[in-house]
Amino acid sequence: MKNYKIIIQYDGTRYNGWQKQHNTKNTIQARLELVLSKMVGREIEVIGSGRTDAGVHAYGQVANFHLNSNKTPIELMNAVNQYLPDDIAIVDISVVPEEFHSRFHATAKKYVYRLWNKNIPNVFERKYLFSYHKQLDMNAMKQAAQYLIGEHDFKAFCTNKRLKKSTVRTIYSIDFVEKEGELQLWFYGNGFLYNMIRIITGTLLEIGEGKKMAEDIPEILIGKDREKAGFTAPPHGLALMEVDY
Amino acid sequence: MKNYKIIIQYDGTRYNGWQKQHNTKNTIQARLELVLSKMVGREIEVIGSGRTDAGVHAYGQVANFHLNSNKTPIELMNAVNQYLPDDIAIVDISVVPEEFHSRFHATAKKYVYRLWNKNIPNVFERKYLFSYHKQLDMNAMKQAAQYLIGEHDFKAFCTNKRLKKSTVRTIYSIDFVEKEGELQLWFYGNGFLYNMIRIITGTLLEIGEGKKMAEDIPEILIGKDREKAGFTAPPHGLALMEVDY
Repeated sequence: MKNYKIIIQYDGTRYNGWQKQHNTKNTIQARLELVLSKMVGREIEVIGSGRTDAGVHAYGQVANFHLNSNKTPIELMNAVNQYLPDDIAIVDISVVPEEFHSRFHATAKKYVYRLWNKNIPNVFERKYLFSYHKQLDMNAMKQAAQYLIGEHDFKAFCTNKRLKKSTVRTIYSIDFVEKEGELQLWFYGNGFLYNMIRIITGTLLEIGEGKKMAEDIPEILIGKDREKAGFTAPPHGLALMEVDY
Repeated sequence: MKNYKIIIQYDGTRYNGWQKQHNTKNTIQARLELVLSKMVGREIEVIGSGRTDAGVHAYGQVANFHLNSNKTPIELMNAVNQYLPDDIAIVDISVVPEEFHSRFHATAKKYVYRLWNKNIPNVFERKYLFSYHKQLDMNAMKQAAQYLIGEHDFKAFCTNKRLKKSTVRTIYSIDFVEKEGELQLWFYGNGFLYNMIRIITGTLLEIGEGKKMAEDIPEILIGKDREKAGFTAPPHGLALMEVDY
């Protein structure tokens, strides 16, 4: 039995996120498992590096699964891609040691949140950009981002489903990239809570607009109150870019 | 009454092309006319620089229309964009002399045909790229393109609907741009016949694969027989980029 590590890209638009769910087959994980299980004639479990929300995209989601196959890894990848819908694709595959686990062994993740800050609509990338026309004070946003970098309890910046788990995470960097009407916020950290990047993005936008101040961030972090942070930016601007091991 | 010149972008995926048709309202022209006509309370005709086929995209389609409005051009553009579907947008607007006609006065057009020449699927641009995995002899394709440049009767390279009209056109240039698995064919000419770029692209691909020879082109041009040229590449790889006046 071999352990295959794959890199997967998906346009999350029409899916209910990565994770398999009881009430729907319409998730990326379920689609992958369906193709692999049919191919080998038994149930295959695909282990992802973590969940992505409904509507969130991925350029570099990582997963692994155990399989017996006579095919070379590339042949296996091509065969699976043939049966996947055209908005999901395996773009890289390799055989890794038996004990490799894409969730447990992930050490860091990189996400990008893409904003369209122009008054003219973006026709061709509309599904991957959150249109936000307001004028933004970039300096205030960058200053606010500085307060978020490092190890913090991000309880105020997450939609808490289970209160028992730790909400402490480390953000290594938040980078701002501006190009032709687009603003990209790159987040690199050891892990992110449910909705965390979307709430941080919403909060940074409110600071950019002047509704909140960069100096409010330390207080929001300490207060641990979701109500004090900003709105949850919509999922379609977000993409998982890279998982480190 | 003012004459407005607009630049329009559209994702052609779900439309039956640019041109208004009796049997469908699902064209770009019809959508634009509907919004403008509702806005001013009378029928407005939008004159396009030319048709684009069903499924073909545009980054720089040009059109004009006559209207009385108290709004500034930018206000008018923003108002129309609010009512257009999110896969059509006006990206530029200006007031031009009364006699300007976007079709009659067009002197040249630039199109790009985008090919995805990698075995791994392209998830995010799948609607704008024609996936073609075969290995291509780029030198043969470039040599073939040289035979097509200049003034020729392109009858063999068009789906003829009306046989009476002239099929003589001038291609100024065909440029090849390669980047990360993508091959772009840029066509610049004084006008293009129905399906002409898609048939030229199909023919160049057959030459790239070795099914035809670059040296066949002069004969195909002289023979004026559609059957001797290559297949019609699908519409979704094609986009109108620019119209010159």
